[in-house]
Amino acid sequence: MGLTIGVDIGGTKIAAGVVDEDGAILETHTVPTPPTAQGIVEAICSAVAGAGSGHEIEAVGIGAAGYVDDKRATVLFAPNIDWRHEPLKDKVEHRVGLPVVVENDANAAAWGEYRFGAGRGHDDVICITLGTGLGGGVIIGNKLRRGRFGVAAEFGHIRVVPDGLLCGCGSQGCWEQYASGRALVRYARQRANATPENAGILLGLGDGTPDGIEGKHISAAARQGDPVAIDSFRELARWAGAGLADLASLFDPSAFIVGGGVSDEGELVLDPIRKSFRRWLIGAQWRPHAQVLAAQLGNKAGLVGAADLARQG
Amino acid sequence: MGLTIGVDIGGTKIAAGVVDEDGAILETHTVPTPPTAQGIVEAICSAVAGAGSGHEIEAVGIGAAGYVDDKRATVLFAPNIDWRHEPLKDKVEHRVGLPVVVENDANAAAWGEYRFGAGRGHDDVICITLGTGLGGGVIIGNKLRRGRFGVAAEFGHIRVVPDGLLCGCGSQGCWEQYASGRALVRYARQRANATPENAGILLGLGDGTPDGIEGKHISAAARQGDPVAIDSFRELARWAGAGLADLASLFDPSAFIVGGGVSDEGELVLDPIRKSFRRWLIGAQWRPHAQVLAAQLGNKAGLVGAADLARQG
Amino acid sequence: MGLTIGVDIGGTKIAAGVVDEDGAILETHTVPTPPTAQGIVEAICSAVAGAGSGHEIEAVGIGAAGYVDDKRATVLFAPNIDWRHEPLKDKVEHRVGLPVVVENDANAAAWGEYRFGAGRGHDDVICITLGTGLGGGVIIGNKLRRGRFGVAAEFGHIRVVPDGLLCGCGSQGCWEQYASGRALVRYARQRANATPENAGILLGLGDGTPDGIEGKHISAAARQGDPVAIDSFRELARWAGAGLADLASLFDPSAFIVGGGVSDEGELVLDPIRKSFRRWLIGAQWRPHAQVLAAQLGNKAGLVGAADLARQG
Amino acid sequence: MGLTIGVDIGGTKIAAGVVDEDGAILETHTVPTPPTAQGIVEAICSAVAGAGSGHEIEAVGIGAAGYVDDKRATVLFAPNIDWRHEPLKDKVEHRVGLPVVVENDANAAAWGEYRFGAGRGHDDVICITLGTGLGGGVIIGNKLRRGRFGVAAEFGHIRVVPDGLLCGCGSQGCWEQYASGRALVRYARQRANATPENAGILLGLGDGTPDGIEGKHISAAARQGDPVAIDSFRELARWAGAGLADLASLFDPSAFIVGGGVSDEGELVLDPIRKSFRRWLIGAQWRPHAQVLAAQLGNKAGLVGAADLARQG
Repeated sequence: MGLTIGVDIGGTKIAAGVVDEDGAILETHTVPTPPTAQGIVEAICSAVAGAGSGHEIEAVGIGAAGYVDDKRATVLFAPNIDWRHEPLKDKVEHRVGLPVVVENDANAAAWGEYRFGAGRGHDDVICITLGTGLGGGVIIGNKLRRGRFGVAAEFGHIRVVPDGLLCGCGSQGCWEQYASGRALVRYARQRANATPENAGILLGLGDGTPDGIEGKHISAAARQGDPVAIDSFRELARWAGAGLADLASLFDPSAFIVGGGVSDEGELVLDPIRKSFRRWLIGAQWRPHAQVLAAQLGNKAGLVGAADLARQG
Repeated sequence: MGLTIGVDIGGTKIAAGVVDEDGAILETHTVPTPPTAQGIVEAICSAVAGAGSGHEIEAVGIGAAGYVDDKRATVLFAPNIDWRHEPLKDKVEHRVGLPVVVENDANAAAWGEYRFGAGRGHDDVICITLGTGLGGGVIIGNKLRRGRFGVAAEFGHIRVVPDGLLCGCGSQGCWEQYASGRALVRYARQRANATPENAGILLGLGDGTPDGIEGKHISAAARQGDPVAIDSFRELARWAGAGLADLASLFDPSAFIVGGGVSDEGELVLDPIRKSFRRWLIGAQWRPHAQVLAAQLGNKAGLVGAADLARQG
Repeated sequence: MGLTIGVDIGGTKIAAGVVDEDGAILETHTVPTPPTAQGIVEAICSAVAGAGSGHEIEAVGIGAAGYVDDKRATVLFAPNIDWRHEPLKDKVEHRVGLPVVVENDANAAAWGEYRFGAGRGHDDVICITLGTGLGGGVIIGNKLRRGRFGVAAEFGHIRVVPDGLLCGCGSQGCWEQYASGRALVRYARQRANATPENAGILLGLGDGTPDGIEGKHISAAARQGDPVAIDSFRELARWAGAGLADLASLFDPSAFIVGGGVSDEGELVLDPIRKSFRRWLIGAQWRPHAQVLAAQLGNKAGLVGAADLARQG
Repeated sequence: MGLTIGVDIGGTKIAAGVVDEDGAILETHTVPTPPTAQGIVEAICSAVAGAGSGHEIEAVGIGAAGYVDDKRATVLFAPNIDWRHEPLKDKVEHRVGLPVVVENDANAAAWGEYRFGAGRGHDDVICITLGTGLGGGVIIGNKLRRGRFGVAAEFGHIRVVPDGLLCGCGSQGCWEQYASGRALVRYARQRANATPENAGILLGLGDGTPDGIEGKHISAAARQGDPVAIDSFRELARWAGAGLADLASLFDPSAFIVGGGVSDEGELVLDPIRKSFRRWLIGAQWRPHAQVLAAQLGNKAGLVGAADLARQG
């Protein structure tokens, strides 16, 4: 098979990219994300047409946030778009005249990393994505594992604190409330509020108030040695690593790949995650340890992964 | 392939059973469990010889508590026997002259239920065993998933309460401290101590003191309507169901099978587990729900499963 | 001393009442609550003038939500009014020409119950108020204990769940997030959402949706046997009783008084609170047990208590 | 009043000391702690006689671990001695012919610090004792507050983690399981086991194994910069400070005094406790902050406090 197109649906823009068999992106076409559910379908088709023009495309893979059914055809539920049992595959196939595969975006990103990024050479890989929330994907025996109904690997919503923080999903104590970009900001604001004298650099990067702290400030401040920023990353890592230890007890992969915006900070966040993982790994002295690796494809992982999943059919 | 032998290593006896292709046990031979690690190896061989005599046996499967390596040959660590990197497959093959497969006992039981019990007809099944502790096994795509290093599906040791109860594994807050036979007894004793007036039946079945309460008393008392016994099962179910909801977020199977001694109580424990599972299932309105089924093979599941895994090679 | 006036500042109206030495309210005057901080001061004076006209008044006591300083003069911080270091005593004394005492409203209510309600005859009483939030007051040795800086007895904000629910105070896991009217509504909505088939009566009393459930519906539904409503009260009681057990370990009073809107349900909520209290009371077999009593003065407790505190000077 | 005797009952020896009005110990007499409950009564009398010989003694105060009734006469329950409703005051008065006051040992120590140690000049003081377990005492309005039944200030057994660690008291999640000398050792052992490469100094001070780590090793290793030892103190301080913040919400004292063996480490443990206290103090910007002070009397606090309570009558 030759070229396929991967589609990434973001909050502000939709990107379609032509991807070859080696995971290289030959061309990208982006369009703004429309406000309506139906508009987004049309924008996807438009982006695909724009990217594919002049290439011979064999299939299209779409990464979508939310639950995708086991046929990889219907979006059962999307958190940020008003899609409920949306037959996305049929609609897009009808318009663009190519085979379409729909996949959960975190699954697509996991597949991208497994095929062309940090996961190459591993048969059993767990990918977690520390973005605004926490998502992930599971590769076992060189196959993406989607569950019986297509909704596996919803890592962000396992309960790590009984009676814990409210989550947008309606439950409490979900992992993504403790290990995600949003959690990182909360940690930093709480700590800057309680001990502003330890957050001088951090507060200076924003508007001077705890509520003005954003994710980018925390990274920059941590690199400059701000105690509150460093401690906030450590707290995030404490929860992330403990969760990876749980995933090791369940899946026992050979490697974990940590992606998402938070992981862009590299060893600043990876190193404490590894330490926390080791701290909580059960039976650590009796088992080989999974590696904890930084993702390599950045925010292209989802697009590349979706394209490759379409290629696999 | 014809007949194989499955071996179950219990605390007081070791059972070897001749099993046919349909999972039927044709003959069983048991020997007492010796106190030493080496003695147990010999007893396994003796039980296999005793059961196999007069049958044409093609392979032997051994279910062992503990970590078993990815080659299904070496017991890396056993909690109750002094085996550390014990080459059990080689030792037994050498003695009995048949191909041997070693498997974690909870994995073997899961496989038995999947093949011949409650899991028949399902491709993706999670089995949990509520015995003294909590174990389990994962079948995805009709294959037992053992992880990269052979130690997957250690369900009992995921952390459900940060800073929670100490566990024999050295960690804190492990699921099996909250959902297991041992937890059930703790719940009943604590409640009977605090409110003995609600535990009249339960206390009457033992020696009259909270510390004298044992598992069998709780089942009997619950059936007679004892409030503390019923509440203890409900507490167990609260934790068991919440954990199943986490497993659904991770694995998304079509069915859960609940086995182990606690599950012998049937609907008394299954019904509240189902309710708790539904209570905590994320995205319940947008997804098909996995069934929560009672195991069907009782304490034969491990022996039958081990024999069948040996048959599969 | 003869008559004093107590003032209760509510969200919609401000009530001033003339109270005699026996805690009887002789006359009440209410005015609407203005939207501004300064307007509220004027409204308090207006209500006091209205109620006091025709009586010989000797002093005024004002119950205010928030932190009140140790001199009972300045509101350090009010959660719902824009008062920050507000010299309320001076302002009101200047206008009405009478001695004024300012007191935290939950402290005032506790004092009211101690003097004229459920606490009569006890020397050491802890009062908790289960309203929208959770407040309280401490009487030890027949004196209201306000702490060194005036801000004791902020029961609602002790941490009962590490890393738990966010609280309006900026912290996490505060008791009032688990034991209060607001918590009760959350419990009912979550349960009705998860198991609507067990919430038929409850859902029928509102608009049919979980989000339409309000506190009054839960009480009514519980009285009609609705399983979700009953379970919601039980969950509230579980947390309330466990907290009382902690307070017993700390203060060891002879009685707890439970007031606030939630307690209007009487034994529906008191009985499970008592059970939970006994369940968690430390050393229960070695100590006399504090009584858990229903408040008797309803929403008049604060006004009557404030008036009496003014009388005491 | 002139001289009184204070008695401290330790696990290995019983000390009686003659104390003057300024809290100075003029003479001490110690005897070994006998193994039986009755033997201990006799040993107390013997120690009192030995110390008092040659002095004019007016009263005796005995500090005893456990619940002491509101008449300060009977030990309702002692955790380490087989005393159940033991009429200690009567027995000792009968033998020594002097007025006797029995007091909970942590209360006695709190009183000692309030009168002659770190608490001088404060009217409202909370003392916590971080020894093997966690005890404490409450002074409000210059009086020791014992509760209605004599069993107040059992700080160690408030629940800080629902479903948390088992406690010797029969409950779960008690504060002393997270903030005490025993907790400190657990933290160090767990961390040394998980990351021995960060515990080189610590492990070198004991027998080289995590289980060989004792409290004294942790202090010494922390002073030498051992990361695991330092982190163990930080974890202890995290829980201690959060609990002090709860006590501030409840009692609002002007000072906390931290005593017990753990506090002998001074700023090594005090400084992180202060930080954690500030981190969790509710309404920190709207209230004066209580000081967190190191105890000054060391292990003499209980003896001196008991003697002074006897003087006060």
